[in-house]
Amino acid sequence: MQKEIAEWFRQLQNNICLELEKADTQGRFQEDNWVRPGGGGGKTRIFRNGLIIEKGGVNFSEVFGPATDFLRKQFNENAESFFATGISIVIHPRNPAVPIIHMNTRYLEIGNKSWFGGGIDLTPHYIDLKDARFFHSAVKNMCDKFDPSFYPLYKKQADDYFFIPHRNETRGIGGIFFDQLEDTKTFSKEDIFRFVKTTGELFAPVYVELMKRNADKIFSEREINWQRLRRGRYVEFNLVYDKGTKFGLETNGRTESILMSLPPRADWEYDYKPEPGSQEAYTLSLLKKGVDWISE
Amino acid sequence: MQKEIAEWFRQLQNNICLELEKADTQGRFQEDNWVRPGGGGGKTRIFRNGLIIEKGGVNFSEVFGPATDFLRKQFNENAESFFATGISIVIHPRNPAVPIIHMNTRYLEIGNKSWFGGGIDLTPHYIDLKDARFFHSAVKNMCDKFDPSFYPLYKKQADDYFFIPHRNETRGIGGIFFDQLEDTKTFSKEDIFRFVKTTGELFAPVYVELMKRNADKIFSEREINWQRLRRGRYVEFNLVYDKGTKFGLETNGRTESILMSLPPRADWEYDYKPEPGSQEAYTLSLLKKGVDWISE
Repeated sequence: MQKEIAEWFRQLQNNICLELEKADTQGRFQEDNWVRPGGGGGKTRIFRNGLIIEKGGVNFSEVFGPATDFLRKQFNENAESFFATGISIVIHPRNPAVPIIHMNTRYLEIGNKSWFGGGIDLTPHYIDLKDARFFHSAVKNMCDKFDPSFYPLYKKQADDYFFIPHRNETRGIGGIFFDQLEDTKTFSKEDIFRFVKTTGELFAPVYVELMKRNADKIFSEREINWQRLRRGRYVEFNLVYDKGTKFGLETNGRTESILMSLPPRADWEYDYKPEPGSQEAYTLSLLKKGVDWISE
Repeated sequence: MQKEIAEWFRQLQNNICLELEKADTQGRFQEDNWVRPGGGGGKTRIFRNGLIIEKGGVNFSEVFGPATDFLRKQFNENAESFFATGISIVIHPRNPAVPIIHMNTRYLEIGNKSWFGGGIDLTPHYIDLKDARFFHSAVKNMCDKFDPSFYPLYKKQADDYFFIPHRNETRGIGGIFFDQLEDTKTFSKEDIFRFVKTTGELFAPVYVELMKRNADKIFSEREINWQRLRRGRYVEFNLVYDKGTKFGLETNGRTESILMSLPPRADWEYDYKPEPGSQEAYTLSLLKKGVDWISE
């Protein structure tokens, strides 16, 4: 199934890139093909000169070879080889009214184990409850087609994962996060692959809709300043806590592909506190775990 | 000796803040006193509205109490209590010709062990060999008054510590870094304390001289862009590798005091490569371990 999964991810990258170029109308992806010395490689696609998207990356990789010490320690003592393929996306828009989005789908084989992981989550600079409901409803509807337990479980896992302990804030409004999905009595490997595919296919329509809704909103220096501070938090999460980033840097991954997730610009201001009652304070007050965005 | 050491660090903070305000001529430090729930606290001083300094922090802390699990694991299985005091400084200047500087001196007691640590190191956006020689000579002369072995050893430790593996670059041109200095047959605790004091006292004259030499140099958008990319690397080092930052965040330290080291603004540009033969390429070519800055 390796080839089929990698091929599907490769096609997903193409489709998403086309949809984003169409929605932005101006920017284009630039592709870097890279080869992994130990086996495999990837296609890193970086969005340039966008009208709506300031910086974006849609990365595909398919890597394999002898199992590294890191992988063996992490997953399986005796494995001799591994295979991993996935798509990873982060989009930083220009307009602070458009949210940052992240999506990831991945498949890993090590020894005789194999599993899928992934998720999609949203980091609005300013929380708009209608957009939050739209996003979470779309994700829930997608999950419910597979099993009613998926959304509550993977939504909670996203809340727990995308959390910045030293700020006591979630990174954004979450979404879903799932990992190490193996086939069970209820779900075959094909079922899980279908779930992962559907997650991947959700990305473009949902984000294009969020671009359409918000990209023409007027903003000023104030909103830009807040966007830059929120991007600072995004950097803090990704460099201090994100497992994909850590995994990539520790296993000598391609640094530029891993760090494409970082924003074009981020600011830090000592002890910044938004004015009570402001939109910024409102957003901060909602950056916590366990919010029910669908009925909020 | 606890009280004496903390009192000396407290006084050092005052002296350094006065010297920096005098040299900048315009900016002033704003002080935040904070209390640690478990015992002790600190004074965080942040430089505001500087002419030369864009953002700076000079932090003092003196914390104590029951030994935390983290400390016990790190240093001593059986210790019941700990005491730690130190000064930590990071200065981000406006002019890209002025280097970023970092200095730290610390004292830790846990169980019946006690030791000093610290160091001073420079991160120029553009490497100027005369400035590099001036800085390293000042540090070496200071070290040589104690022992000729200090500079080579602690210079190497700085090279090894201030290194960004995923970039294969040193953070800057280093300086000295020392840790867990205990009293030995050759050096009493008083000797080591004198060495730490002299390191602390070196900061103001050396950095004020580097400000004077470079703060009036003309720069354009090009140098500012490069400064922002180098600040991005500074963020990467501090959030991914710096032990003080990790230690602080993991032990529930005061986040705003720990992250005062981050620059006011940092940029990331995908796969940026400076033009061959440019000043930027020259600087990159020197960001490696083992450079002899004094005879370079």
